[in-house]
Amino acid sequence: MAKIPYKIYLEESEMPKAWYNLRADMKNKPAPLLNPATHKPMTFEELTPVFCDDLVRQELDCDTPFFEIPPEIRDFYKMYRPSPLVRAYFLEKALDTPAKIYYKFEGNNTSGSHKLNSAIAQAYYAKKQGLKGVTTETGAGQWGTALSMACSHFGLDCKVFMVKVSYEQKPHRREVMRTYGASVTPSPSESTEVGRQILRDHPGTTGSLGCAISEAVETALSLPGYRYVLGSVLTQVLLHQSIIGLETKAALDKYEIKPDIIIGCAGGGSNLGGLISPFMGEKLRGEANYRFIAVEPASCPSLTRGRYAYDYCDTGMVCPLAKMYTLGSSFIPSANHAGGLRYHGMSSVLSQLYADGLMEARAVEQTSVFDAAVLFARVEGTLPAPESSHAIRAAIDEALKCKETGEEKTIVFGLTGTGYFDMTAYEKYNDGRMTDTIPSDEELEASFAQLPKVE
Amino acid sequence: MAKIPYKIYLEESEMPKAWYNLRADMKNKPAPLLNPATHKPMTFEELTPVFCDDLVRQELDCDTPFFEIPPEIRDFYKMYRPSPLVRAYFLEKALDTPAKIYYKFEGNNTSGSHKLNSAIAQAYYAKKQGLKGVTTETGAGQWGTALSMACSHFGLDCKVFMVKVSYEQKPHRREVMRTYGASVTPSPSESTEVGRQILRDHPGTTGSLGCAISEAVETALSLPGYRYVLGSVLTQVLLHQSIIGLETKAALDKYEIKPDIIIGCAGGGSNLGGLISPFMGEKLRGEANYRFIAVEPASCPSLTRGRYAYDYCDTGMVCPLAKMYTLGSSFIPSANHAGGLRYHGMSSVLSQLYADGLMEARAVEQTSVFDAAVLFARVEGTLPAPESSHAIRAAIDEALKCKETGEEKTIVFGLTGTGYFDMTAYEKYNDGRMTDTIPSDEELEASFAQLPKVE
Repeated sequence: MAKIPYKIYLEESEMPKAWYNLRADMKNKPAPLLNPATHKPMTFEELTPVFCDDLVRQELDCDTPFFEIPPEIRDFYKMYRPSPLVRAYFLEKALDTPAKIYYKFEGNNTSGSHKLNSAIAQAYYAKKQGLKGVTTETGAGQWGTALSMACSHFGLDCKVFMVKVSYEQKPHRREVMRTYGASVTPSPSESTEVGRQILRDHPGTTGSLGCAISEAVETALSLPGYRYVLGSVLTQVLLHQSIIGLETKAALDKYEIKPDIIIGCAGGGSNLGGLISPFMGEKLRGEANYRFIAVEPASCPSLTRGRYAYDYCDTGMVCPLAKMYTLGSSFIPSANHAGGLRYHGMSSVLSQLYADGLMEARAVEQTSVFDAAVLFARVEGTLPAPESSHAIRAAIDEALKCKETGEEKTIVFGLTGTGYFDMTAYEKYNDGRMTDTIPSDEELEASFAQLPKVE
Repeated sequence: MAKIPYKIYLEESEMPKAWYNLRADMKNKPAPLLNPATHKPMTFEELTPVFCDDLVRQELDCDTPFFEIPPEIRDFYKMYRPSPLVRAYFLEKALDTPAKIYYKFEGNNTSGSHKLNSAIAQAYYAKKQGLKGVTTETGAGQWGTALSMACSHFGLDCKVFMVKVSYEQKPHRREVMRTYGASVTPSPSESTEVGRQILRDHPGTTGSLGCAISEAVETALSLPGYRYVLGSVLTQVLLHQSIIGLETKAALDKYEIKPDIIIGCAGGGSNLGGLISPFMGEKLRGEANYRFIAVEPASCPSLTRGRYAYDYCDTGMVCPLAKMYTLGSSFIPSANHAGGLRYHGMSSVLSQLYADGLMEARAVEQTSVFDAAVLFARVEGTLPAPESSHAIRAAIDEALKCKETGEEKTIVFGLTGTGYFDMTAYEKYNDGRMTDTIPSDEELEASFAQLPKVE
């Protein structure tokens, strides 16, 4: 066997032609979305006024193992995919570990993250349905950027509600979206009923993701030819993100590499779910065994300290109920810099896998995450996003355990994105001013007390 | 022949193992650097107090056609290279042109540009010489970022003098450098003689690249074990950047593609020189013919409106004299956003080639450059740097000519970097507030009048 190259790229012809639907191989299926009023499973008819038809079909389908990736989406993927699977030779050397470390790097595109994988799929199905445009919310701006790029490609209108504090503090992200033709509105805004109500009740508010979701949904429902789209949590997103895992597995297979541990950061769960999907499928079918580790911030520890229960997906309580590990939709995480991981719940698919003992989870504190991020940046070159750095932290910790035991384990982790728009967080770290806030048990109990009562 | 993929990647084993020194094939060699006091050619002994020994050898060598790339540098290259040669299928479609358009994309690394190719080489030779560290200046921050990454890799100290206005307005670039362990000083500073003098004479000045160069050189000369390094203009930099052209040629050869036109943006000339080197070599040796187009900003048109004369490389007049197309070292370009192209002169190698009629040049105005940039971003996905977008403008113009004539020309251009740290410029464009300032003939004449008199 020749030496493994630093970067493994698939040929264009080797790129996956279908997404893999992990639910098809799950014995215990994820619990269905419930209508928040009736507590009955959401039907196709109930979901399609808000979401595109084909995406609702994907959302509700727990049986079809593969969905063909339409050629239009595969062509778009070819612009920025396959993403490299990188052998972290320099990190291994810096750690002096016998472990072999690989990472799948999803940051080499203008959205700076894996979000584009699902954005282009959602835009495609909206276009196919003959819609005029889509609405969405964005916090830090990665999802909004990805969706703007995707809508620009298909000539769809894109209306982004951006949490006001981010709109003002991250003008560069906003300008990327505008460059791709999106309209970006600071939320709360005067343009929706819910926005006006919030501005009346809380003049001077800097907004929240929950409020931005409510405004985006209201706008989609009120404009003919518009639907609402979402960048994480939903099962359709996890399906699209399976491209990450499928490419990773194909690259590893090419060199006959069998990973022992697969690690990803977990916010809503879409990148982790996408990365592990084909490997978890093998495990579920009894064909192979792997350890999976979900890494979440100690400030927002939904898997490690949350309840497995039905809850609202949004703080505005307009979306369906999902059964998931949750800190309660009223939980407000501290201003942790890993904006993409500040979600109170977790994908229902990952939640079920975790409940079934098929996956591990751990929470890590922010300063140790940035220790790992800076080490990684210096030895591997790429400046990682704070979110991705949670996975780096755990990968380093596992590699250091191998150093102690002498085991030559193969570790694969997902490097979801770059940190170029997160330099304010790095500045705090560089200046020694970084802190972290861990929620107290009392705080979590108070939030759990407000979970909806579902039979 | 199979369909050309969207992205052509070389295998690691196909990556170049030597840089190509174009001067070896030039009949008319570029004019030598002159001592600013004696007007005699600079010697090895005169240059080595400022620059590393091996780099001076490369600078002075007009005969050796290939320099082996040391294995340590090749290993570093493997972290972020080979860079993709991309077939711009979506751009071709948007333009409805029979032309075939390719671009070599150098932006997929944390420095965001091709600058890393030379930074790692310069850091390597400094380390090899047993030096403690290097000093440099940076304006927009791309070169400083690249050098910080390179120094971090070899454990060298890195002192960056950053033009004060950029230090304050681009804190994110500054933080990237600090994350890689560099010390970043706003220039002018109190830490050098020349800085203190300038602060006495011009209290409240926001600094200039010329001043930052002078501070970096003074610091290198005053600290034992330090040398000064430079990111463009010098012939050694062009040598290192030949990796761009060598990879491009290898990728094209793999698919038996012969380009007709090769286009690059031109500031100091290092990326353009690097891209065209192996192709120009073929042309010089009579093995092939190509059109080469250097694209410069209309606000700083050194090739199209400058004089071919000996001039100072820096506004502080501390560096050697170089014979080049120049607007005069006292020329101050308008605050064009393409910071990397705001240089009064041009690489002596490219200047000689242009003087010999082997290369074309054109100047383009900023708003039309951003028209091209935004079109490119929307259809090809990647948000380009303003500098790189000069090449995009010319490539689009050439492709549109093919549309008129029906010719199926093959166009290759260099996409040197991404625009993620240039969103203020995009904001101006998006808001319709972008302007450009073209220097008047009188202004240029006044600057030419101050050119040094060299026999």
